[in-house]
Amino acid sequence: MEDGFSLKDATVGIIGLGLMGGSLAMSLTGKCARLVGFDSHQPTLELAHSKNIIDHAQPLSPSPFGRGARGEGVVDLLILATPVPSILNFLEQLPAIISHPCVVMDVGSTKRDILQAMSALPENFDPIGGHPICGKENLGLENADADLYQNAPFIIAPLERTAQRAKLAASQIISAIGATLIEMTAEEHDRVFAATSHVPFLLSSALVHSTPREFASFIGPGFHSTSRLAGTPSHMMMGILRSNRDNVLSAIRSFRNSLEEIESALQNENYVELENILNQSRKSHLTLTADH
Amino acid sequence: MEDGFSLKDATVGIIGLGLMGGSLAMSLTGKCARLVGFDSHQPTLELAHSKNIIDHAQPLSPSPFGRGARGEGVVDLLILATPVPSILNFLEQLPAIISHPCVVMDVGSTKRDILQAMSALPENFDPIGGHPICGKENLGLENADADLYQNAPFIIAPLERTAQRAKLAASQIISAIGATLIEMTAEEHDRVFAATSHVPFLLSSALVHSTPREFASFIGPGFHSTSRLAGTPSHMMMGILRSNRDNVLSAIRSFRNSLEEIESALQNENYVELENILNQSRKSHLTLTADH
Repeated sequence: MEDGFSLKDATVGIIGLGLMGGSLAMSLTGKCARLVGFDSHQPTLELAHSKNIIDHAQPLSPSPFGRGARGEGVVDLLILATPVPSILNFLEQLPAIISHPCVVMDVGSTKRDILQAMSALPENFDPIGGHPICGKENLGLENADADLYQNAPFIIAPLERTAQRAKLAASQIISAIGATLIEMTAEEHDRVFAATSHVPFLLSSALVHSTPREFASFIGPGFHSTSRLAGTPSHMMMGILRSNRDNVLSAIRSFRNSLEEIESALQNENYVELENILNQSRKSHLTLTADH
Repeated sequence: MEDGFSLKDATVGIIGLGLMGGSLAMSLTGKCARLVGFDSHQPTLELAHSKNIIDHAQPLSPSPFGRGARGEGVVDLLILATPVPSILNFLEQLPAIISHPCVVMDVGSTKRDILQAMSALPENFDPIGGHPICGKENLGLENADADLYQNAPFIIAPLERTAQRAKLAASQIISAIGATLIEMTAEEHDRVFAATSHVPFLLSSALVHSTPREFASFIGPGFHSTSRLAGTPSHMMMGILRSNRDNVLSAIRSFRNSLEEIESALQNENYVELENILNQSRKSHLTLTADH
C-alpha cells in the first residue's frame, strides 16, 4: 500500500447517511474527488442524492465497494458512520467484499471493541479509529448540518498496524471539515467518554425516570437542560453501553460517591461543607466547559 | 383594605434588581403608574435608573417605603425579588418600616418558609407567595431581559389570609409580563420543585464534582447540557436547599433508586431490562418537556 494520501484525488465512501455520516458528506462537498454514500434505507439514499450531498448512492447489497461497479473505481477511504454494533458488524463483513487497498475509519462512540475488530482485518485494509465529539439529540439525514463538525474535537485512535497513509487520510478529513484532531489510545478514550458522555446520558435518563409525569407543567429551563440527553434514542446508546460497560459502571460509582457527599452534607445540615462542594463544582464547571 | 387592585394606577416596588427583579421591572415598563426599585448595591440602582428600567431608585436604608419620601407616595404592591434567605429577612423587617396597606408578593424559589414568615406579617399587609419558572445561570441586572417571563409558568401560592386584592395584584402582574398563572399550595410547590429544579442542580454539581478537570478537552454538547446548572452561584442555592431540605433529600432518594435500577441492569448485563428503562425514560422525557 502506498504511503501518501491526497483527499482531493480520493474516492470517499461513507456507510450510514444519518446525522453523523450525512453531515460529514455535506462538509466534504468539493473536497474529495468523489463521494459515495451507502445506506440500508432507500429513501435516505434518495434524499442524499437529490440534495447532491453525495455523488453516487449505493444500496447496501453484496459487494457494493468493489472496482468497476458502474465504472466509478474503488473507494480509497471508507468511513463507517453507523451505531457501534453495526460498525462491528460491517468490520466482519468487509473482508468478503473489499480486496483492494482501502483505508477504513469509523466515527463510533466507543473505541476498544472497534479497534479490536479492526485489528482482525486482512492486510489490504489500513484501519484507524475515529470519534468526533459533536452531535444533536435529533438524528437522521434530515437533521444533518454541514457545520456540525466545525471546531469540534475529533479523536483519532490509531492501531499498532495503522500506517502513515491512514493517519494522513484521517488528518486530511478532520482538517477538511474544520474539526480539531486529538490522538489518544482506545483505552483512554473509553475511560474518558464513560465519564463525559455515557454517564451524563444515564443520569439524564435516571432523572426523568424518577420524575412523575404530572410534574410536566412545572418544568423550567434547568430541568430541560439536565434531562436533555434522556431524549437520545436508546437504540443508539445500547451498543455504546454494552461496549463500554466496565468504564461506565466505574464512572457511575464515582458519580454516586459525589452525590453521596452532597446528600450527607445536606442530611447532616453541614451547610459549610455543602457550600464548599458546590463552590468546588462551580469552579470545575468553569474549567471543564471553558471552551463552550 | 380595599378589595380592588388596578395595576395601571399602582405604585409597584421591587426589592432586588438582579436578573429576576430587573427583568420584572423591564417587562412592567408602562404597565403600572410608577416603578420604584430598591437594591443594596448602589451601582445596580444607578444602572437601573440610567437605563430607565425604574422610575425611582431607592437605596435600602431605614424606612425606604413610607409615604412622602420625596413625595412619591406609598408603594401599593411590593415584590421581593432577592434570594430566599434575604426574602425571609425582609419579611421580618417590613413591619417596622411600612404601616400603610400594602400587597406583598415574592418571587422566591421555595414557598413553605416564605409563606410561614408572611403569615406573621401585621394586618396592613396582604401577602401572597409567587414563583416564576424561568431564569438563566448568568445572574444580575446586566443579564436582565424584558422577555424572561414571556410564556413562563408563574406559580401563585396564596395564604389562608390572602385577600382578593393580593390575588388580583398577582394575576394582573402575571398577565402584564406575559406569564401563565398556576395556583398551588406551598407544600405541593416545594415537593414538586425539589424534583424538577433543586435535585437537577445537585446532579449537575455531583456530575462535575466527579469529572476530572483534565477531561476538559473532551467535553461535548451532552456533558455541557447535563452539567449546565452546576454553574449556578451556590450562594443562590444554599437558602433554597436549607429551606427545602426534607423534600430535596426525598427527591435524591427517588433519583438514586432510578440510577440503581439502571446500574444493576448494566451490572447484570440485563440489556432487555436496561433498554426498557431507557425507552420509558425517553417517553417520559417527551411528555415532561413537550412544551419546550
